[in-house]
Amino acid sequence: MSDVEGERIDRASAYGDGLFETIAIRDHKARLWSLHEERLRTGCSRLGLPCPPADKLLAQLEAAIAASSFSTEFATAKLSLSAGNSGRGYRRDPNADAVIGIALYPARRLPPQHYQDGVACRLCNTRLAVQPGLAGIKSLNRLEQVLARAEWSDPAVFEGLTLDTAGRLICGTMSNVFIVKESVVVTPAITRCGVSGVMRRHLIGLLQSKQGIECEVRDVAGEELATADEVFITNSQFGVLPVRACMPSRWQLGPMTRLAQSLAAANGFAECAQ
Amino acid sequence: MSDVEGERIDRASAYGDGLFETIAIRDHKARLWSLHEERLRTGCSRLGLPCPPADKLLAQLEAAIAASSFSTEFATAKLSLSAGNSGRGYRRDPNADAVIGIALYPARRLPPQHYQDGVACRLCNTRLAVQPGLAGIKSLNRLEQVLARAEWSDPAVFEGLTLDTAGRLICGTMSNVFIVKESVVVTPAITRCGVSGVMRRHLIGLLQSKQGIECEVRDVAGEELATADEVFITNSQFGVLPVRACMPSRWQLGPMTRLAQSLAAANGFAECAQ
Repeated sequence: MSDVEGERIDRASAYGDGLFETIAIRDHKARLWSLHEERLRTGCSRLGLPCPPADKLLAQLEAAIAASSFSTEFATAKLSLSAGNSGRGYRRDPNADAVIGIALYPARRLPPQHYQDGVACRLCNTRLAVQPGLAGIKSLNRLEQVLARAEWSDPAVFEGLTLDTAGRLICGTMSNVFIVKESVVVTPAITRCGVSGVMRRHLIGLLQSKQGIECEVRDVAGEELATADEVFITNSQFGVLPVRACMPSRWQLGPMTRLAQSLAAANGFAECAQ
Repeated sequence: MSDVEGERIDRASAYGDGLFETIAIRDHKARLWSLHEERLRTGCSRLGLPCPPADKLLAQLEAAIAASSFSTEFATAKLSLSAGNSGRGYRRDPNADAVIGIALYPARRLPPQHYQDGVACRLCNTRLAVQPGLAGIKSLNRLEQVLARAEWSDPAVFEGLTLDTAGRLICGTMSNVFIVKESVVVTPAITRCGVSGVMRRHLIGLLQSKQGIECEVRDVAGEELATADEVFITNSQFGVLPVRACMPSRWQLGPMTRLAQSLAAANGFAECAQ
């Protein structure tokens, strides 16, 4: 509590005015750094926020890694960019600098079974609003994900998949989703809502450059889940995980999911190896 | 920067997981407290957050007022409710308590001309997403308002009006909007997006109880602005302000706006008196 005249407010906590990146640290290095940095820069551009130079950001992250009190062989860094301080009210201070915060956490290794047998998901009741202005970027306005994640406490459910308000499949609360139908790999377009994950982008590139497979990026009706041959999810921490069920649908683990896992394992995501 | 193992995150700054109320303090008392408290409680219920008892909240606010280092004859209190701390990730800690914060600020008196002659608004390019789950409440996810407010810096423009993604008129960045057409008072339904303002509610009640006027609360097409006879905006700090222009539309100050200002002036909003 405070009552200091003219006190300035922190816009991240007051309005969610900012962005963040959750970065996997492997062998003391930021994995997929260039994709994280690019998304952060895109986010700054969309929100109209100043973004520090890439080399300065990386130097700050590396300094945090070097100073870590625990091992950063297998860790997670959370980089946040706040719009900084301003007076009260939605109007930003045009002279305010963005404030970068970096926190490191030991990372949790998933059970090998998750990679081998797949995980169970649920279809969330919470729908994502269509807001092209915020789609794709990772802003600090994450109440939709919070509400979706609050729908379950069963530890057997690993992730929740979300539709938008028009019933399109978009992504998971913390992951992107891919479906395979008659050997075609499809992932939902992230143009109206959802977060454009760095691992989603990395994998789309790997499928194309290493295997000549063009991933279809398009609108996906929620109903397409039920008729998919394979389903898998991606994120920057765990890489690629097969989805074996999203009730009432169940899927077999198939060759395209295994291919995606192999590609990931050979390209920075060793933990995806089977 | 920190790298403490197992550190917990503040969910307000990480995800905007919380709510706030901006309360006018007049003569050392919280104006429209019961409406603020009710909206906060509704917000907690919608977000699935625990809400402290009303008497405890009010006692905390009164203590802050009593301890203020400046006069609270004409001040503003910002009450925030954070979902508290949790581990990293969208999942809340079911044992976490909500954290209440109260900050007091000296309030700014608007120029009398604003009440007498009205203010100029702009129609924002930023559209509000349709998200019934968050509509009406005052959550800490306010990037849409921030982006709308960032559209102008001209101090002659007092407020920005916003439409939803379907083109319906919803509200201002910090206010609710009323239009008058052939002596009928209309205000947009706040069921898909927007904030349900306490002054909006107070005024709807005053119009009905003191004058027998039923305000129409319904969907309002953006185009209805241009054909309105009068337009005014409301919020808990300034009460009722006539809108004289939202380019390219201009309006005359009319009898219904004056009536709304008189009702406000006689019922707690002395600053609205002409």
